[in-house]
Amino acid sequence: MVVGVLGGGQLARMLALAAYPLGIRIEVFDPTSDACAAQVAVHHCAAYEDEAALARFAEGKACITCEFENVSVEAMRFLANQVAVRPASRVWEIFQDRLLEKQYLRSVGIPTVPFAPVDPQRPTEALEQVGCPCVVKTRRFGYDGKGQRVVRTREDYLTAVEQLAPHALLVEAYAPFERELSILGVRSLSGEIAVYPLVENHHREGILRLSLAPARDDTGALQSIATGYITRLLESLDYVGVMALELFQVGEQLLANEVAPRVHNSGHWSIEGAETGQFENHLRAILGYPLGCTAPRGVSAMINLIGELPPVERVLSVPGAHLHLYGKSPRPGRKLGHITLRADSVAERERRLQQLCREIGLMCHN
Amino acid sequence: MVVGVLGGGQLARMLALAAYPLGIRIEVFDPTSDACAAQVAVHHCAAYEDEAALARFAEGKACITCEFENVSVEAMRFLANQVAVRPASRVWEIFQDRLLEKQYLRSVGIPTVPFAPVDPQRPTEALEQVGCPCVVKTRRFGYDGKGQRVVRTREDYLTAVEQLAPHALLVEAYAPFERELSILGVRSLSGEIAVYPLVENHHREGILRLSLAPARDDTGALQSIATGYITRLLESLDYVGVMALELFQVGEQLLANEVAPRVHNSGHWSIEGAETGQFENHLRAILGYPLGCTAPRGVSAMINLIGELPPVERVLSVPGAHLHLYGKSPRPGRKLGHITLRADSVAERERRLQQLCREIGLMCHN
Repeated sequence: MVVGVLGGGQLARMLALAAYPLGIRIEVFDPTSDACAAQVAVHHCAAYEDEAALARFAEGKACITCEFENVSVEAMRFLANQVAVRPASRVWEIFQDRLLEKQYLRSVGIPTVPFAPVDPQRPTEALEQVGCPCVVKTRRFGYDGKGQRVVRTREDYLTAVEQLAPHALLVEAYAPFERELSILGVRSLSGEIAVYPLVENHHREGILRLSLAPARDDTGALQSIATGYITRLLESLDYVGVMALELFQVGEQLLANEVAPRVHNSGHWSIEGAETGQFENHLRAILGYPLGCTAPRGVSAMINLIGELPPVERVLSVPGAHLHLYGKSPRPGRKLGHITLRADSVAERERRLQQLCREIGLMCHN
Repeated sequence: MVVGVLGGGQLARMLALAAYPLGIRIEVFDPTSDACAAQVAVHHCAAYEDEAALARFAEGKACITCEFENVSVEAMRFLANQVAVRPASRVWEIFQDRLLEKQYLRSVGIPTVPFAPVDPQRPTEALEQVGCPCVVKTRRFGYDGKGQRVVRTREDYLTAVEQLAPHALLVEAYAPFERELSILGVRSLSGEIAVYPLVENHHREGILRLSLAPARDDTGALQSIATGYITRLLESLDYVGVMALELFQVGEQLLANEVAPRVHNSGHWSIEGAETGQFENHLRAILGYPLGCTAPRGVSAMINLIGELPPVERVLSVPGAHLHLYGKSPRPGRKLGHITLRADSVAERERRLQQLCREIGLMCHN
């Protein structure tokens, strides 16, 4: 059985590594000649506009899925005429556009920060609706903090709008959040749903650096709210596969920030830290297999390796450390790998995290 | 970094899958064109006698290891002139020969059943030393019950000797064992040693069917004896890599049966059932990295899939089931894959094992 993945980055790579033991082979489609998934899977190297290449890619696939946010919806629609595409292309149309995304979240009763589309002719109208401080964002093609500006004054706002034009924009109120969380859920072809523990995320320079799973200091109330939200999203969209919902915690409230209709960086801990990893569960879901248990095994911390790689022997000297390198060459700001630290208690995880930070010279959270 | 593996079966395949996340690539050397590791690693397809192919294989490798018992020691010696071979070829010379193996075990004070080499001119002499019932075995090229006969009378013994000739033979007393166990240990280039929990093994028709890890009903006394034995073996041989020691339990005693100087079927449970799997630890060891923790995560059962494959969806419907298919075509008696069932208690493992047996129609232990 062969599954096609649009995109050949680390997510496709980890899907491929999870696929082999299940008797599934992955083929990836990516225009980049050095796509890192190509080291572990067959690589179709062509442009997303190349319909002949897409048609060849679709041949003989059990289904096709996608590993990245900004996939060409045209390519997905083209493929969908030939083979099952999961999740469906309509899902990508919604979540590629930050305005449609927020409107969709609101439409199913999931709270978000106040937001408004920016009318380039009358930009201040949107500002009046959300107030300052706020965040100006491009509606499309933003990820890892790209395509957005935090602004504190009307003047800053107008400058940001000018800088980000001619892209279509929206503006969101700046949430006075205490922390960032995310919840990953998975829904199979048969409608079965499983939800992972709530994860606490720490970003720097717009890039995820550290995830703690499960999130600290939750009595179960936050997990329950987040599980409700992700379940509503999965069901309302008739969604198939893993989905991530990023959340802001404000007091006892959770506000939805972003949806990723795919496996997600804040779920990488699940490879060792949960009974079944997100990559395996995504495959189980899109192929209609029963889902694997999403319960945690102990507690985990996931540390992203950004821009440069630490010495392998230092990482492996820390008890409970599991290294995942993506086979990419170092470049500033690039995600090159991650480490999952597993432990049997929160205190042990904190000790190991401190030890890891000493070993590899990482800035620790808090 | 590239590691070479002699042999391209499921052990090499699982080594390759464990290698990618560590930034290591595996290349395998195997004369079989459809070697299953070739699906996940570069395959050098040539005969073990082909020195030009071996020389090309050795080029650029960080080191070379081996996945199977009956590797050509000549090939290993040839490679060792060009590149580090771990474990060293002398280890294979000992453990390929059941007589040298048992003599070595005795020489380091590890008890075995009584045994004697069979002199083809005077075969009854050996029988007189060990008595009946006993097991006649070829000294070389035996695995999975091949090359051996259990005999109960002098006449059967002489028939067996005749049938197994002209191979060099030995005869061993038949141990009145209560159960079969195995212990896996790993020693790194730096001399660091780690030992996995003692495993209980159930065979049928000479092939491993089920492993329970940790072994049931051990107060720690058996683990302690087995840890002592495997540590003595690893240290006395200056061994590098994972080693398995198969044992018979007779009362409170453990008798050594066989040594496998490689990753081992009775250690497959460790992929999910231990903090660090045997395949990763073998790679860590031969590359001189710190070893990973060998502690169990809950309790596990490993079920071999022999000859035919159950429906994937049935396997995945059992909570805690982790499926590993090797990409091999079905054939009677062939190891096609395994399932590891992980659970948080022995009672839960037993329930899940019963459920799995119902789902896939396997004969359960006991």
